[in-house]
Amino acid sequence: MGGDFGPQVTIPASLDCLKNNPGLKLILVGDEAVLNPLLSNALKAYPSRLSIQHASECVTMDESPSKALKNKKDSSMRVAINLVRDGLADACVSAGNTGALMATARFVLKMIPGIDRPAIISTLPSIYGHTHVLDLGANVDCTAEHLFQFAVMGAELVKAVENIDRPKIGLLNIGEEDVKGNEQVKSAAKLLENSSLNYIGYVEGDSLNAGHVKVDLIVADGFVGNVALKSIEGAAKMIGGTLRQSFDKNLFTKLMGLIAYPALRSFKNRIDPRLYNGASFLGLRGLVIKSHGGADILAFKTAIQLAEIEVKKDVIKKISEQVEQSLASRASV
Amino acid sequence: MGGDFGPQVTIPASLDCLKNNPGLKLILVGDEAVLNPLLSNALKAYPSRLSIQHASECVTMDESPSKALKNKKDSSMRVAINLVRDGLADACVSAGNTGALMATARFVLKMIPGIDRPAIISTLPSIYGHTHVLDLGANVDCTAEHLFQFAVMGAELVKAVENIDRPKIGLLNIGEEDVKGNEQVKSAAKLLENSSLNYIGYVEGDSLNAGHVKVDLIVADGFVGNVALKSIEGAAKMIGGTLRQSFDKNLFTKLMGLIAYPALRSFKNRIDPRLYNGASFLGLRGLVIKSHGGADILAFKTAIQLAEIEVKKDVIKKISEQVEQSLASRASV
Repeated sequence: MGGDFGPQVTIPASLDCLKNNPGLKLILVGDEAVLNPLLSNALKAYPSRLSIQHASECVTMDESPSKALKNKKDSSMRVAINLVRDGLADACVSAGNTGALMATARFVLKMIPGIDRPAIISTLPSIYGHTHVLDLGANVDCTAEHLFQFAVMGAELVKAVENIDRPKIGLLNIGEEDVKGNEQVKSAAKLLENSSLNYIGYVEGDSLNAGHVKVDLIVADGFVGNVALKSIEGAAKMIGGTLRQSFDKNLFTKLMGLIAYPALRSFKNRIDPRLYNGASFLGLRGLVIKSHGGADILAFKTAIQLAEIEVKKDVIKKISEQVEQSLASRASV
Repeated sequence: MGGDFGPQVTIPASLDCLKNNPGLKLILVGDEAVLNPLLSNALKAYPSRLSIQHASECVTMDESPSKALKNKKDSSMRVAINLVRDGLADACVSAGNTGALMATARFVLKMIPGIDRPAIISTLPSIYGHTHVLDLGANVDCTAEHLFQFAVMGAELVKAVENIDRPKIGLLNIGEEDVKGNEQVKSAAKLLENSSLNYIGYVEGDSLNAGHVKVDLIVADGFVGNVALKSIEGAAKMIGGTLRQSFDKNLFTKLMGLIAYPALRSFKNRIDPRLYNGASFLGLRGLVIKSHGGADILAFKTAIQLAEIEVKKDVIKKISEQVEQSLASRASV
């Protein structure tokens, strides 16, 4: 039910995913009265792979997380997360209110023992392929220990999803030299240097998309990570808009755009943010994927596919085991 | 002498500026033995507007600020800043080592009374024209009071340079709602709300280039501002590279690029980062402009032009007066 467009986007995206992946089962959670008419044909087409789980309420996009948690116990996001808790679903995907989804997920699923705060991780396109980044805004005023926990969890996700043994981890900073940075990153760097993680050192903001070395995972305080992510979104929006305007200026430039369409199209496809939609909440004892609220059908499909991958790779279990191990090894030092 | 290319860039840029602006006088500071042969014709062409000031040393790009300050008392940047202190120059423009330039400027010129820390301000292109942003990396671990001081100084610069009465000021945060953010920005917001500044509230990272409302000045901790700036640089680099690759793929796409060249050219000109080169150090009792180290001739010209504008608008004097006034008005509350 969530996101800026609700079932108008989530249903076609879901049906597309069911069609493309015969191994996928989906439970659509929301108001039966709304969903049933839209799904009558699909329910017949996928009798064993598609079902509806009724939820009488819906958290709005601007509702406060605490109010949603307290007052909407039968919201679609709450019911969906309950399904994960009860083992009836392997993951929850939502385009709804981020704060409410995080608060509900944390309340219902609980944290992995040893992790203080959940973090939001997602990928950005880069000149090397893509980069995983966390935290993207779940936490502000993090301690060095929190950043270290993010690195442990993020590394495990990257290992599983990318099939690489020792992902290269960078700490987001304002310079690469040891003397650079605030107290938070300097202390976090010490923890990372003394760990078994493949920590490569400080990286600057340009490393998210186009650093001078490839980094698999970039760790940041949620305040900094969120500002960086939004700054990149703004830059892409301005650059894309300026490119469009340059071709829209007059009849001649429009003609140029028409002729250059295949190249412009291939350019657009390669940096399409919809192909990077979907952020995972890490640190919880269950898988929750947040789609951008403004996601269209293609973007929401990407978020569902991300959930599929993380379920198949058993990311939550791997993170839990790694956290336990790394806590044990640190305790024994 | 500074920057990645030294006189190879700074001299042609200087001569271009002298040619285009009959009111401009330049003193080129550096090793006479290097500069004299390169400038013999120009010195004849502009006898009253161009001169050389000898400096026997040069700070390297990777030298530590404290070492440069202590050991290189006859460096080109030190001598240039001395000229500003002694009233022999109205501004110093350098493409050299940022940390050393800042440390030297602070030591030689001293701070404006009432300002605790200098800040770096620059402009970014935006869908509304451009946005001024500070601090871009001079300060980490700022207090709310520091952010407030940045806002006072930045507003005065924007007023002078843009000829607007009450520039709209935003505080960089991870959401626009009051509850969002870390302790630092929440406290800074209170100071700004209670001031006479035209504070419009929190803005997110996308506001640097493409927010949903126009903001004239965005205030941030230097850590956050620097990460945002570098993230935008990385995004632009990746997007530009991808666009080039899309047209470079094969003979047909290359032909498309040739046909679309005028539109692509106009696009490039509108977001050319070289036209935004030059950052001002605010809070000092003299004008120092830092050019990007990798600046080419066009970019370095932009930095010289920025210095000209700020001298003409008497930015330092206006900031000093405003700081004094605003401290007086706060003390009397």
